[in-house]
Amino acid sequence: MSEVPLPLGFCAAGLWAGIKKPGRGFDLGLLAADRAVPAAAMFTQNALVGAHVTVCREQLAASKGLVRAVIVNAGCANCATGERGLDDARETARLVASHLGCAAHEVLPVSTGAIGAHLPMQKIRDAVPGLVDALRGDRAMDFARAIMTTDTHEKLESATFTADAGEARVTGFSKGAGMIHPNLATMLGFLLTDAVLPRDAAGLLRDVVERSYHRVTVDGDTSPNDTVVLMSSDRLSAADGELCEGALIDVAGRLCRQIARDGEGATRLVTVQVRGAIDDAQAARCARTIATSPLVKTAIAGRDPNWGRILSAAGRAGVGIDVARARVWIGETFVFDEGRPFPERETAAAAHLAKEEEVVIGVDLAVGEGGADVWTCDFTADYVRINAEYRT
Amino acid sequence: MSEVPLPLGFCAAGLWAGIKKPGRGFDLGLLAADRAVPAAAMFTQNALVGAHVTVCREQLAASKGLVRAVIVNAGCANCATGERGLDDARETARLVASHLGCAAHEVLPVSTGAIGAHLPMQKIRDAVPGLVDALRGDRAMDFARAIMTTDTHEKLESATFTADAGEARVTGFSKGAGMIHPNLATMLGFLLTDAVLPRDAAGLLRDVVERSYHRVTVDGDTSPNDTVVLMSSDRLSAADGELCEGALIDVAGRLCRQIARDGEGATRLVTVQVRGAIDDAQAARCARTIATSPLVKTAIAGRDPNWGRILSAAGRAGVGIDVARARVWIGETFVFDEGRPFPERETAAAAHLAKEEEVVIGVDLAVGEGGADVWTCDFTADYVRINAEYRT
Repeated sequence: MSEVPLPLGFCAAGLWAGIKKPGRGFDLGLLAADRAVPAAAMFTQNALVGAHVTVCREQLAASKGLVRAVIVNAGCANCATGERGLDDARETARLVASHLGCAAHEVLPVSTGAIGAHLPMQKIRDAVPGLVDALRGDRAMDFARAIMTTDTHEKLESATFTADAGEARVTGFSKGAGMIHPNLATMLGFLLTDAVLPRDAAGLLRDVVERSYHRVTVDGDTSPNDTVVLMSSDRLSAADGELCEGALIDVAGRLCRQIARDGEGATRLVTVQVRGAIDDAQAARCARTIATSPLVKTAIAGRDPNWGRILSAAGRAGVGIDVARARVWIGETFVFDEGRPFPERETAAAAHLAKEEEVVIGVDLAVGEGGADVWTCDFTADYVRINAEYRT
Repeated sequence: MSEVPLPLGFCAAGLWAGIKKPGRGFDLGLLAADRAVPAAAMFTQNALVGAHVTVCREQLAASKGLVRAVIVNAGCANCATGERGLDDARETARLVASHLGCAAHEVLPVSTGAIGAHLPMQKIRDAVPGLVDALRGDRAMDFARAIMTTDTHEKLESATFTADAGEARVTGFSKGAGMIHPNLATMLGFLLTDAVLPRDAAGLLRDVVERSYHRVTVDGDTSPNDTVVLMSSDRLSAADGELCEGALIDVAGRLCRQIARDGEGATRLVTVQVRGAIDDAQAARCARTIATSPLVKTAIAGRDPNWGRILSAAGRAGVGIDVARARVWIGETFVFDEGRPFPERETAAAAHLAKEEEVVIGVDLAVGEGGADVWTCDFTADYVRINAEYRT
């Protein structure tokens, strides 16, 4: 994957600090602005939270939402690690701050990896000076690499839009391939822009996440460490607010599709379309239920146009549905229509599943005008293998 | 498996009618009482329901809860089949009634299998006379066999208790190994007793199901056809009410454990214990969330004492939890305690997972006195294979 440019005023770095086993790739990454800049973050809704979630909330309160840098480690979630875990996260932020020459509360520490182990602090102490030095190389790809766990590739996306002062840019990074489910800032996401944000960063981030990270699911499991951070270097003023928000949603949405496509063991990116719901919220709920159903996802893995499982999942979503008028489609083919099956159409549906890397399935609930798309992936025996052997 | 006795006043039969492919086993079963007897049924809470659910509700209303027989087919769910599906279910009941010499509304038709195909009615018409004849052989095991789909073995259990008029019996049958989740009369279950029921059959069944079928989950998917039927032949009066309810819960609970143990692809029966919840309902909700987590279940498949996933699933269950005082155990070993991990204890926990066919995992939420157990199974690559290839 080619290098992706960063917005003005940001630089990035990544390296191997020895947190992961040798040969497993980079494990420590740094994103930095040239000064403390406006930022917002959203975190998991799990009652169990990684130490960094607690510490980031403290930092953002102390800094009043101004952030100089984000340091991310992979290979250790620093979660369920008690007081010592909090101390370790705080020390990590202080280490970076002392080398960048900024206030400790202007650095957000973020962790991802297995739950229940302590951060190897000596390795982090040893690595931070080199990591800060490496910012001069401005290596976005190294950062993208350093935040990966079971991801099979780096996830970064970029878009530009017109601001008064020239062309503004949004660049985003994500990691995540399992333990991914909406209703939180799912997995890790970092969205950077050089445009002055058109409104309050926290409110803007909420709306962006609702249209992106809340619409992707791999396995329905919600990590205690999920975090999305938005930072603006405030360089290019008077960008059109809608253009800016649109670019953020575009980049975040593309990252989410990458996450679903890279779901652990996945062979198919699946877009679940729900239409005809009472409202958009019910549509999203129904789409998430379908997108989380192991039976639907294993059927897609088996290239089986088993629309009965799709309709059944919609039926148990707890949303309004008129089964007698509902429709189910796979690709372009209506396999259930007018309240009855059309077995003769299943060949076309099976062909869609067999040929396409990107699969579309959908349900019309036939009770209203609400709609939503959710991205997920198929569910293969490899998902089980990856997760049965994750710590071994 | 040895033949299990039926309560007085019931007989059973099963045969191959050609609904399943040849060599896949019996597919049509019949349970009959010697006259119309008090009965109750509970059905799926899915908004999509199999045709038999609608027809059974009609029958029970028309018969005022008196049932002579239950006919069950496997291999075709007769679900999402429109008006024709309803007509087929009604015809099936009429066929049995005409051969038994009872009213059509005294027969409950029940279907299980793949969604979206019509019942092969000519095969059922051809088979019913022989099936009714076979009742004379009183073959409980044949009935148990005839209701199987992906089950690897028949599921029947029996218990006795003392009534005034002698020894009373409860015998139960179940099928189900996938698409199993609580909040409905999960999968198929048939509970028969010769004791006079101590109270209203519907209320009694609700309480029995709450303590049994609502506590088992294989994959979190809720079938549109799930049905549990309770019938009493009313032979033995003045049974102790608590003894009778206890025997029903005992038999139903043993059937549920069989279902979890026989979960598609499963190698382990898993009991999820939640303690210290605000109330029993929150405990059950939390236990179900843990029992449905693909990450927890794949870890058990991999014999990995990955308690972080257990705690994380508890954290996202939406129930009260005090993480700083919570505890997690695997077998007899507290792997998370006093708000922190004990890595040195994981060897003992791993040994429990490696050695035992029956695994216990638990969480103390540390906020109250509520508790619940939920049964599930581990999640292996074979589950995916079975469900990817189900219809092929």
